[in-house]
Amino acid sequence: MDATPDCLLPAVALPAAECRGVYEAILTRRDTRGEFLPDPVPDEVLSRLLVAAHHAPSVGFMQPWSFLVVRDPAVRKTVHDAFLKAHAEAALMFPEDKQDIYRSLKLEGIMEAPVNICVTCDRDRAGPVVIGRTHIRTMDLYSSVCAVQNLWLAARAEGLGVGWVSIFDNGVVQRALNIPQRVIPIAYLCVGKIRGYHPKPELEAAGWLPRLPLDQLIHFDQWGNDTADGGLLDRLRADQRAVNEGEFLTDRLPK
Amino acid sequence: MDATPDCLLPAVALPAAECRGVYEAILTRRDTRGEFLPDPVPDEVLSRLLVAAHHAPSVGFMQPWSFLVVRDPAVRKTVHDAFLKAHAEAALMFPEDKQDIYRSLKLEGIMEAPVNICVTCDRDRAGPVVIGRTHIRTMDLYSSVCAVQNLWLAARAEGLGVGWVSIFDNGVVQRALNIPQRVIPIAYLCVGKIRGYHPKPELEAAGWLPRLPLDQLIHFDQWGNDTADGGLLDRLRADQRAVNEGEFLTDRLPK
Repeated sequence: MDATPDCLLPAVALPAAECRGVYEAILTRRDTRGEFLPDPVPDEVLSRLLVAAHHAPSVGFMQPWSFLVVRDPAVRKTVHDAFLKAHAEAALMFPEDKQDIYRSLKLEGIMEAPVNICVTCDRDRAGPVVIGRTHIRTMDLYSSVCAVQNLWLAARAEGLGVGWVSIFDNGVVQRALNIPQRVIPIAYLCVGKIRGYHPKPELEAAGWLPRLPLDQLIHFDQWGNDTADGGLLDRLRADQRAVNEGEFLTDRLPK
Repeated sequence: MDATPDCLLPAVALPAAECRGVYEAILTRRDTRGEFLPDPVPDEVLSRLLVAAHHAPSVGFMQPWSFLVVRDPAVRKTVHDAFLKAHAEAALMFPEDKQDIYRSLKLEGIMEAPVNICVTCDRDRAGPVVIGRTHIRTMDLYSSVCAVQNLWLAARAEGLGVGWVSIFDNGVVQRALNIPQRVIPIAYLCVGKIRGYHPKPELEAAGWLPRLPLDQLIHFDQWGNDTADGGLLDRLRADQRAVNEGEFLTDRLPK
């Protein structure tokens, strides 16, 4: 099927259940650290997650991502050791009254999850000049992040957990996985079946930081202009309230 | 509801239609440039897209994003002028035999789309020390990209189009929208109702670049090791073939 204007696919909303599925995956997705089960992830599920990632948007269609599927305990231990070192360094960076809380947080499941996936960005994937990357050089990195988010949402749809570990020296990961210099490790993900999803993000539940009021993050036409569109702001507040009360999926979507 | 281990939500797959919705949004999402309709986006739809974005993962739960909702034609014209300048510069960077093709591509819908949304990243949103950003400084930028991808998938679920414009000097956008220095513009999005979705990405359909074979983007345990797991690779090839033939959503998902 060629992509001529004559054969566009209809731009209609997905049917109600399918549309709800998208919002449900988005709202109930969590960063999983402590709930991994040792059961292997079936090939057919892992394959679908990778298909989801591969169909992310990419700048100039360069598809800069690769996926390292890491199961070898020795490789994972190297990464975990890098985490332990960085985690200890990180604790000392926080104000003294927060250091104990920080140390008590479970922040990764590298060894417990049955599989780790490192998503990378090959900056040379499509040659030196890429449509859309000519003026903003980071666009290819952002494409790989979109692949991560696709994978994460697909995993939620499949009932799996994903945790993104970022507390280590990226160079250690690069060497542990033998990743070439031109290729950037973007995300190190722990993936697997889990005991359950936390109802809220763990840092929110632990009182580390609150969910920010969405209506205060909106500006109209220019930064700082927050008064131009009362209708949208009212709607945002009502939607956020419905999310907080667990009523968004039932009450705020098209039927 | 506190996030104690005793009240985890069950980690089961979404019901079949909801799960299919997630994959359908992922596979049929497109970067829209030339198909925008002038109809306004209803507040209730725009609000849901922003709720989806706000529930992206963020490093240390810092929620670094803000959303500039841009409708003012004068502001949009400034951005469009920046695009035209950069687009002309970009054309000259390509090999001569590709310059005419490049110039013929429609790459943005800034003026045609009824609303533009600039997604930003406030690097100071949660103070200088952020959980998970201590060793990889770009993590907050990546969080804002996750918000973009959430918004994009929600827009697909709602039947809307989104186009990410990256061909301009980011400094011009920063000044046109009066965005403070500490805040980084991550994505400039054109959003609206559209005439339809292209069956394939336009750059793929135009022969600019092919879809890469997913099984060649997989490594096992270490970069370059592509032979360790034939079962997964076979599955990936079959899944990718099903995507290409339009049979993935009907044939490859759990019933």
